[in-house]
Amino acid sequence: MIIDGFIYSAVSAGIRKKDRFDLGLIYCERPAVAGGVFTTSLVKAAPVLLGMERIGSGKAQAILVNSGIANACTGAAGMDAARQSAGMVAKALDIDEGLVQVSSTGVIGEQLPVETIAGAMDELVKGLAPFAYDRVARAIMTTDTVPKTAARVCRIAGEEIKLFGMAKGAGMIMPDMATMLCFVMTDANITAAVLQSHLSKAVKQSFNRITVDGDTSTNDTVLALSSCRAGNPEISSLDTEESKAIGETLTDLLKDLALQIVADGEGSTKLVTIKVEGARNEEEADRAARTIANSALVKTAFFGEDANWGRIIAALGRSGIDLDPDKVAIAFDDVIMVRDGLGLGSGAEEEATRILQQKTFSVTVDLKLGQAAGEVYTCDLSLDYVKINADYRT
Amino acid sequence: MIIDGFIYSAVSAGIRKKDRFDLGLIYCERPAVAGGVFTTSLVKAAPVLLGMERIGSGKAQAILVNSGIANACTGAAGMDAARQSAGMVAKALDIDEGLVQVSSTGVIGEQLPVETIAGAMDELVKGLAPFAYDRVARAIMTTDTVPKTAARVCRIAGEEIKLFGMAKGAGMIMPDMATMLCFVMTDANITAAVLQSHLSKAVKQSFNRITVDGDTSTNDTVLALSSCRAGNPEISSLDTEESKAIGETLTDLLKDLALQIVADGEGSTKLVTIKVEGARNEEEADRAARTIANSALVKTAFFGEDANWGRIIAALGRSGIDLDPDKVAIAFDDVIMVRDGLGLGSGAEEEATRILQQKTFSVTVDLKLGQAAGEVYTCDLSLDYVKINADYRT
Repeated sequence: MIIDGFIYSAVSAGIRKKDRFDLGLIYCERPAVAGGVFTTSLVKAAPVLLGMERIGSGKAQAILVNSGIANACTGAAGMDAARQSAGMVAKALDIDEGLVQVSSTGVIGEQLPVETIAGAMDELVKGLAPFAYDRVARAIMTTDTVPKTAARVCRIAGEEIKLFGMAKGAGMIMPDMATMLCFVMTDANITAAVLQSHLSKAVKQSFNRITVDGDTSTNDTVLALSSCRAGNPEISSLDTEESKAIGETLTDLLKDLALQIVADGEGSTKLVTIKVEGARNEEEADRAARTIANSALVKTAFFGEDANWGRIIAALGRSGIDLDPDKVAIAFDDVIMVRDGLGLGSGAEEEATRILQQKTFSVTVDLKLGQAAGEVYTCDLSLDYVKINADYRT
Repeated sequence: MIIDGFIYSAVSAGIRKKDRFDLGLIYCERPAVAGGVFTTSLVKAAPVLLGMERIGSGKAQAILVNSGIANACTGAAGMDAARQSAGMVAKALDIDEGLVQVSSTGVIGEQLPVETIAGAMDELVKGLAPFAYDRVARAIMTTDTVPKTAARVCRIAGEEIKLFGMAKGAGMIMPDMATMLCFVMTDANITAAVLQSHLSKAVKQSFNRITVDGDTSTNDTVLALSSCRAGNPEISSLDTEESKAIGETLTDLLKDLALQIVADGEGSTKLVTIKVEGARNEEEADRAARTIANSALVKTAFFGEDANWGRIIAALGRSGIDLDPDKVAIAFDDVIMVRDGLGLGSGAEEEATRILQQKTFSVTVDLKLGQAAGEVYTCDLSLDYVKINADYRT
């Protein structure tokens, strides 16, 4: 979706491999209102450190993003490389260097080839165009098999507001973000503080609820930029109907992208929603759902289309939450397999097996201890996950 | 190893599959001094609940063990089945029912076929013999590819003390035990309290330090029985040299069995020791080692023989421990790959790759923050792990 004020470009710079888009640029014709959310890992890549430093201004005008090399664990040289590449963009576009964000994804521990980026800068800037967003979505892919984009429109005070997002991520995905990058462009007339607040909340409800393999990355970054070109009165508080509408639309957009990431999880053949209900509190509901969603035994059973609820209950047992095994109920979609901690036998199992043969299904666990609920999205653990990750660097 | 006082038997009862040993019996000619350690999971199988209840006496005379069905999540009927099968053993051997321990391993959620066990009891008891321990070691196997036994001898006050152990476990293995069963027979003259104390400590140093897939089971059980037939003066305190010697020998025996389990981890092709040094305290060292040892990305890199230290540092970053990324050092065996948080380049990488081609190697992480250290044993995540666990019940 074209968003008024934004133009895009991507090139094959040859950062790690040749003949594929690996360097992208997003540019807003005037300084955009901006917010960002970054990895919670204590090991933060150089572009993340630089991005966190710069986003405080609430403004950004360009995002330079590369795939192939993560520029993580690269020390002072890595920070220099991040700053230098941002500087090149600022010079080429004649904008303030502090308004340039940089993002990287790929192999950890290798230095970013600044010369290669410098050599590609002319072509990159020349290619900038409003419709070239799909090229950037492809330039940020690593083990992703498809580019991921989503768009939403909402109406505020009679004005049409547009939101467009792109994301990458397929492995090292886990609640509390992922090896994932996401860039959202909008034309909503909004203040930086409100945009940041809505973004933080939307990330919690979307990217922080997905898991592919329980690993968290050094480079996770979500940036939202607004050209403020839409005709709506400026949104400057969180409490108005207009503000809530934009927050919900943003959450919906990010959830769409998050589910695209799980569906494209490395080697994934199933997209599974794990719901935990009847918990004493939200924290326990969440912890139970995540333990199930990350269990290698549960995920291989999904891959094998095996309604092996014993592995789900075993994951619950070690999750550390309060639990009465004799109360637990488990359902696959609407087929109840376990009631009062006991399996309902081969009839239920046959029905559940048919559900597991679908590409998408849900597992609902009712702890029967309270009113709190939580939800996490996961995928199966397949032969291809192992193949992809055993061979990633070769 | 034959241990004075103990006889063994195993038969093909047909509990879940035919034509394989699936029911075993260990019998001590007189009531043995006994200790036990059981799963920490909140979902405990019926035999575990019964065993915990009975071990309090510090005595046991027989262990009935079956594979195929775990008798977990089977409710009141499962508890009845556990008690009934113990009752059959007591009757057949004419011993006190409270001295019979039962253990089960296999699929969760199916009822134990008590009739099948009753039908096999005669043959089982008739087969009891001092040298038949290997048959029991085979009867407890599930996805194990080899039976696991180990023996140790130590001298106390001039007397030879023997210890013999058998174990099973290959998946659902994780610190805090595993789907694992372990039975230790000894002739040491020792009190129940001291045996229990040494056993608890030895389990911490052995089975609680291994991980195959981060899952913990409902059925984990370690039982140690002593016939007290050796001629040593009774060991009745923890502090004597004699007591320490027996504790160390027991730990060494359990560590041997624990490493056999990891080496036979489902689909495992590598046995890897993860050492974390220079931590602020032992808890953080342990947590860091376990996070690395359970990372799917780290384990697939081991399978791919890829010295991908970036994944190790990413696991550290999300482990929740205190960390200064710029201080971290990482070595594969004695090849240092990372110093002060930076990779040492392709020379070190080539050497490290040669190390990863070995079947056994270690990864040492030095956090450079303190003096505490921790160690965990893990294996790789291979294509066969997924195959085994996707197809386990079919």
